[in-house]
Amino acid sequence: MTDSSDNSAFEKQLTTSGRSRRDVLKFGSIATLGAVLGGGALLGRATPALAQAGSEGTLAPNDPLNILIVNYDGGTLLDFAGPSEIFHRLPNTNVRYASLDGGNVTLEFGVVYGKTERLADIDETDVLLVPGGSDLTAPMRPAYQAQIRRLAESARHVTSVCNGSLVLAATGVLKGKRSACHWAFVNKLAEYGAIPVPDRFVEDDNGRFMSGGGVTAGIDFALRVAAKLRGQQAAEFTQLAIEYDPAPPFHSGHPRDARPEVVAMVDKKLPGASRGLARVPGVR
Amino acid sequence: MTDSSDNSAFEKQLTTSGRSRRDVLKFGSIATLGAVLGGGALLGRATPALAQAGSEGTLAPNDPLNILIVNYDGGTLLDFAGPSEIFHRLPNTNVRYASLDGGNVTLEFGVVYGKTERLADIDETDVLLVPGGSDLTAPMRPAYQAQIRRLAESARHVTSVCNGSLVLAATGVLKGKRSACHWAFVNKLAEYGAIPVPDRFVEDDNGRFMSGGGVTAGIDFALRVAAKLRGQQAAEFTQLAIEYDPAPPFHSGHPRDARPEVVAMVDKKLPGASRGLARVPGVR
Repeated sequence: MTDSSDNSAFEKQLTTSGRSRRDVLKFGSIATLGAVLGGGALLGRATPALAQAGSEGTLAPNDPLNILIVNYDGGTLLDFAGPSEIFHRLPNTNVRYASLDGGNVTLEFGVVYGKTERLADIDETDVLLVPGGSDLTAPMRPAYQAQIRRLAESARHVTSVCNGSLVLAATGVLKGKRSACHWAFVNKLAEYGAIPVPDRFVEDDNGRFMSGGGVTAGIDFALRVAAKLRGQQAAEFTQLAIEYDPAPPFHSGHPRDARPEVVAMVDKKLPGASRGLARVPGVR
Repeated sequence: MTDSSDNSAFEKQLTTSGRSRRDVLKFGSIATLGAVLGGGALLGRATPALAQAGSEGTLAPNDPLNILIVNYDGGTLLDFAGPSEIFHRLPNTNVRYASLDGGNVTLEFGVVYGKTERLADIDETDVLLVPGGSDLTAPMRPAYQAQIRRLAESARHVTSVCNGSLVLAATGVLKGKRSACHWAFVNKLAEYGAIPVPDRFVEDDNGRFMSGGGVTAGIDFALRVAAKLRGQQAAEFTQLAIEYDPAPPFHSGHPRDARPEVVAMVDKKLPGASRGLARVPGVR
């Protein structure tokens, strides 16, 4: 393979390449926060900011912010582990986890995620985040869909990662809205009246709807959400804290770059994937 | 911010840039696997492959592979969520989770990770992975250290992500070995006789020791481990499945690139960070 001295040269080239991309990568305004202290301590239950700021008002970076991540059996850990790690480090932000029945959920591969609250016990949230999964049977059931719909209606920002957008779309809240999704499922959004966009991050209605692509896209998604809601400097602080300086060893992160035989492997496992129409249990 | 049409142009530029990096990024041999089917089903408890392949032998990509991820209160979810997502998708690979007492562990920010096995119940493992945390008090205690040392001695590959390398180093198994660590803590490795290397991935003793940098580096680390142990094609399949096509919105993933005021924010929160000497509870 490569030892770390090769690796060092390798990272240097990446860095050089990265630097030249800096102007391309920058977006949004330069941070103007006077006092972003960044992450760490939870500040207790913040009050939902919607009522305070008004539906058109901009949420100030120091207003309390509630983020709710919904969980269900069959979900994918990394879809929300990236956002979780970023959101917990933002100032004056409270991150909660909930599932239909509360308690432990059993994610994809039998991974157990513990101590979620009950969805019915959450009155409202500023940000609703629906992660995806390999089996969407649970969140596609009517009782779960009703909770998502209820929370989405009052949330300031309705968001998803990976094929969590199919769960949102099935509730009807994405009708006519542009949305991202994992590349293998993205075109199924149209079956629910949403507009599929094959990008890593998609925003509609001036940020009321924000979505990320598949699995690891949740990290890029969450940094953008962080910048929008807590200011660019807080987002940059978080990126540095989690050392998000990616250096993938292969160029295989998207079908447009992967070797055809590797795309074929995914198609074999998930028929229809390369047309964005792979089936997932629970989705019609 | 940017809407997704801007985003589209933005991603295109990234892709172009990414393509030109392809030759730089490639490493190792072209995959020669005849039948990598990739991910999905767990195949039950695989037998540790060490005895089968011999200490110098190369593990064939179809030999069963056991990976053990150790957990503890105060650990960081994303340090192991990336590797978990990758390792579970590899062929003929069994991923287990264990902590000193078994059961639920309470990670950083109060995140609960459930149903771990007891370390004492694990006889041996092919790959030992120690993730990092914001509080290393638990894994630095003698009883936990004894379990890590025992498992490391018989493991084919002794690995870590983030400041999990400090936990390994404290057991003595990294004496004279090159190791990665989160940038804020990397130079503390020297206090335990290990050799700090400020890279995203570090390998020593021909892969017996492999380590990743901070938090998100676990994804790059795991793809390299996957390629080494299950073949490049299986690693590329996994990268495609988790859509690992990173597009960080800011250039702030490492102190060499971040704005000085952002590095200063981390230094304020973690004094000594920019010298690689930040303190972490539990570490002398």
